[in-house]
Amino acid sequence: MDDLLEKLVSGDRRALSRAITLIESTRPDHRKRAIELLARLPDRQALRIGLSGTPGVGKSTFIEAFGGMLTQGGMKVAVLAVDPSSARSGGSILGDKTRMETLARNPDAFIRPSPSRTELGGVARRTREAIRLCEAAGYDVVLIETVGVGQSETLVSEMTDLFVLLLAPAGGDELQGVKRGIMEMADLILVNKADGDLLATARRTVADYAGALRLLRKRPQDPEGFPKALPVSAASGDGLQRAWEEMSALAEWRRQQGHFDANRAAQARHWFMAELRAGLLARLDRPDAKAQLQQLGDAVASGDLPPGVAAARMLEQLTGLPE
Amino acid sequence: MDDLLEKLVSGDRRALSRAITLIESTRPDHRKRAIELLARLPDRQALRIGLSGTPGVGKSTFIEAFGGMLTQGGMKVAVLAVDPSSARSGGSILGDKTRMETLARNPDAFIRPSPSRTELGGVARRTREAIRLCEAAGYDVVLIETVGVGQSETLVSEMTDLFVLLLAPAGGDELQGVKRGIMEMADLILVNKADGDLLATARRTVADYAGALRLLRKRPQDPEGFPKALPVSAASGDGLQRAWEEMSALAEWRRQQGHFDANRAAQARHWFMAELRAGLLARLDRPDAKAQLQQLGDAVASGDLPPGVAAARMLEQLTGLPE
Repeated sequence: MDDLLEKLVSGDRRALSRAITLIESTRPDHRKRAIELLARLPDRQALRIGLSGTPGVGKSTFIEAFGGMLTQGGMKVAVLAVDPSSARSGGSILGDKTRMETLARNPDAFIRPSPSRTELGGVARRTREAIRLCEAAGYDVVLIETVGVGQSETLVSEMTDLFVLLLAPAGGDELQGVKRGIMEMADLILVNKADGDLLATARRTVADYAGALRLLRKRPQDPEGFPKALPVSAASGDGLQRAWEEMSALAEWRRQQGHFDANRAAQARHWFMAELRAGLLARLDRPDAKAQLQQLGDAVASGDLPPGVAAARMLEQLTGLPE
Repeated sequence: MDDLLEKLVSGDRRALSRAITLIESTRPDHRKRAIELLARLPDRQALRIGLSGTPGVGKSTFIEAFGGMLTQGGMKVAVLAVDPSSARSGGSILGDKTRMETLARNPDAFIRPSPSRTELGGVARRTREAIRLCEAAGYDVVLIETVGVGQSETLVSEMTDLFVLLLAPAGGDELQGVKRGIMEMADLILVNKADGDLLATARRTVADYAGALRLLRKRPQDPEGFPKALPVSAASGDGLQRAWEEMSALAEWRRQQGHFDANRAAQARHWFMAELRAGLLARLDRPDAKAQLQQLGDAVASGDLPPGVAAARMLEQLTGLPE
């Protein structure tokens, strides 16, 4: 454990991988070690950026180009994925690193696919803890990538400092395709593929989204002009530097205004309570509870015991306390 | 306790009232006695009928007339209310018995208003347990009345044998006002006020709803012709006997086909698990947990402890077991 922690803190990528594997494990002895490790991590902070975009928008290319630019600027970049569909399919985004070949070979970058066969609650815990591990390992920026389907965006926005929405150039009608809820989470909308034949369309799309963003209610954590829409081209690199400058400026403003720390504190409280509730309910899945649960459930179904009486008995057994 | 149980079983209405007050109490010593009482109730069965309808549809008048008819037929009728709004207002339906003066004076009827200042989960438990008490007290029919807002209908349909929707005569356009989800719960739709000037409109409305019901997917627990729409007049009494015959026939068919018992068994299992989950989460609200919860929450918010670590510590304290 001391060895793993030491190597992790020194920035060893293999140690980081091993540590993430440890926190992903559901084995009780692994979980115990994971808890120990997490409790001993040094207090380093990265900028946590959520990045969402529907398939086909060029997300991999964007991350390659954006991440590459940041590492050239002397930063270390980690990329984590939250993919709710991978619980079924075994990983549909970042299933391998071939999507981002250049970044995967970059010594200042770290890419980790979404864990498969895990329900959304498990993915949430794993991702939050993996972010902490990346921070402890000295990464400056942690990008949390997700696919634009709603539920995972909410999850990711609840564990990040900034939320970026990557969209494709499109006609006005297609604007409707972005759910209002996701729009409301965005700090920055980037319209990708602003190059070549699509440049004019991309600029119009930026203007359309900028107009739509102005219609949203002003949030206290936004300085003048935010949320903002900008054109970028992952292919040519145009606009990436500007996008980064906007993200940095927004984060800096939020730090100065106290929003940054307040947001992290609120997020931490939220996840503490969520884990606590999930952990309590998970007691029902323990092998020692199952037999009793089955027996009481059968007695309830046959009418021998009222549900409330059976629940009281089970609760007393689970917690050693009367209701 | 023995005295209360004995009087309750003998059909004493005051004992029934006292027993319901006992199961409504959240005081730990009351709860303990309630659990004892529930565990000792004799196994009697009433027909549990959920009745929903928006305000103005004539629900009180219907219950007066329908309940009165059943008692004239030699049956004992209990009326319970589930009113989610009463959690705020202190009781908006059945807040007193003046709405159903005749039935309230009827020795073969028992009317109990919705408990006030209780959240929906508490109302659910109280209502289910009150149904059991009414059954033990020898009532043949238990009507569970609720107001048509969706969430409480689901709740009531999950604790009844039949679900009846009471509607007003209305033009075709207003058909849309009934949420599809509520429509799908109904075994019987009764269009009230089918008398005088409204008779023709009521008949048209019945035909409209009958058409709408035919479009719903067939459920295994329905015999041919169900769910069904019928006209009734609570004011004149027309159609009430027919409505009761349809309810009885449906219940009888379900008994013969095994759906009746299977439904009750599934409901009991559902409530057992729901109570168990609610009971586990309620541990977090206990006074002895609050201080620890506050302290760990603060440590998490300040970044001194990761949420997962704090949750693990709290869980160990709550249940005496490591995660």
